Amino acid sequence: MISSVSHVSGDYGNGHIAIVVAMMSEARPIIKALGLECVGRLHPCYPMEHFASEHRPHVQMVVNGVCPRYGVDNIASQPATIAAFLCIEKFRPAILLNAGTAGGFGKDGSSVGDVYLSHPMVFFHDRRIPIPGYQEFGVGSYLCPDVRAMAASIGVKTGSVSTGNSLSSVPEDLRIMQSYAGRAKDMEAAAIAWVAEQHGVPFVAIKAITDLVDGEKPVHQAFLDNLHLASKRLADKTVQVIEYIERLGVPS
Amino acid sequence: MISSVSHVSGDYGNGHIAIVVAMMSEARPIIKALGLECVGRLHPCYPMEHFASEHRPHVQMVVNGVCPRYGVDNIASQPATIAAFLCIEKFRPAILLNAGTAGGFGKDGSSVGDVYLSHPMVFFHDRRIPIPGYQEFGVGSYLCPDVRAMAASIGVKTGSVSTGNSLSSVPEDLRIMQSYAGRAKDMEAAAIAWVAEQHGVPFVAIKAITDLVDGEKPVHQAFLDNLHLASKRLADKTVQVIEYIERLGVPS
Repeated sequence: MISSVSHVSGDYGNGHIAIVVAMMSEARPIIKALGLECVGRLHPCYPMEHFASEHRPHVQMVVNGVCPRYGVDNIASQPATIAAFLCIEKFRPAILLNAGTAGGFGKDGSSVGDVYLSHPMVFFHDRRIPIPGYQEFGVGSYLCPDVRAMAASIGVKTGSVSTGNSLSSVPEDLRIMQSYAGRAKDMEAAAIAWVAEQHGVPFVAIKAITDLVDGEKPVHQAFLDNLHLASKRLADKTVQVIEYIERLGVPS
Repeated sequence: MISSVSHVSGDYGNGHIAIVVAMMSEARPIIKALGLECVGRLHPCYPMEHFASEHRPHVQMVVNGVCPRYGVDNIASQPATIAAFLCIEKFRPAILLNAGTAGGFGKDGSSVGDVYLSHPMVFFHDRRIPIPGYQEFGVGSYLCPDVRAMAASIGVKTGSVSTGNSLSSVPEDLRIMQSYAGRAKDMEAAAIAWVAEQHGVPFVAIKAITDLVDGEKPVHQAFLDNLHLASKRLADKTVQVIEYIERLGVPS
């Protein structure tokens, strides 16, 4: 493993590529493809679990785990904030990835199963604060490394990722997403991007489309119907992202 | 100071009463009233600042600080999540308070300057996830200690506090808030309540009304116009909450 801690292109720092995943159904195919095993929790008060493998000791995956009170996966931006923080504190990765599913837009040429790498930015579409300065702070505009060559190489799309705490959308969300050409609508990426920015860690989201926000099928129905298919595509492409970084380093 | 670490009523555990505040304009009158001074940051990567006083060594205040990129206070639920986490990890408080401003509802009898203690619960109104189990997880429903006697003693109202990442409201937010009789609409409390719940720390929000969500004046205008007045009221009542806990312990 590379032992340098610099973040220059062509290097992946201390060798750690960390991946945060919100749902176990999203994580399972990645865990299988990479041969990872659960090695324990990141913090005694939180269900976030650490997955790793002796065969690929530079890859660290964190899965948000199950909410002990409601028995569902710890989705949305507050658990994602903690998961990202604990992950960065523990592994000091050279790059932080967030692999997950997302909604897409048929009008922008998205289909179920498409995979996007976040470029140029990640945004919040549900932090509407109409006061100068706060407005821009709310939207966030977290810059990602230039992953266009990586995306072309592994055969995925690039587009800005847009985060809100809801699976369903209100017209205001869609108007805001459209203002910055958001291509993948998720529930975690911008929170993770914000944490990564605070620590100076490069961040890329990998998002597989489960549902079309502007499609005819109700979003939550399409999400459940396509979660398995999209998660399989997500795993294939996440492994290819990791292999690309192993070969060529963290893009700058 | 009391040195026991139990959380029973009439005790405040290890003696620490911690207060998280998002904005410096909300915090300043409390800092002044309690004679606190800034004693440093909680984490080198984050601008959250720790305020304390030798004269009241069991009171620890954390102010979210200024976003280095946009130059505005670190409001909304993701910075609040980190602030709450760092605060609990550092001080292991017997109770965590969140003092701040909020929107109220004229139709429910609120006026600008009213102060609410969160009871019975704190909710999220912007995590709409219409899938069984996830729906309830999204709303959160974080239970607070029974602060009704405290509220009566210090002359403030009680009501559920409802959190979303936006200062402005969309009709869906208001419909959801109404479903659980939310009385104070803020941008941080539920995120802090969620973190506190993970650590088993009792949590109470203290919210002073700056604007009426159903009033005629635009919310952001009323917010800015009334921030000073509401923050003064907030400080008076936060000091009284602290004095009440010092006398009678953490309510259960």
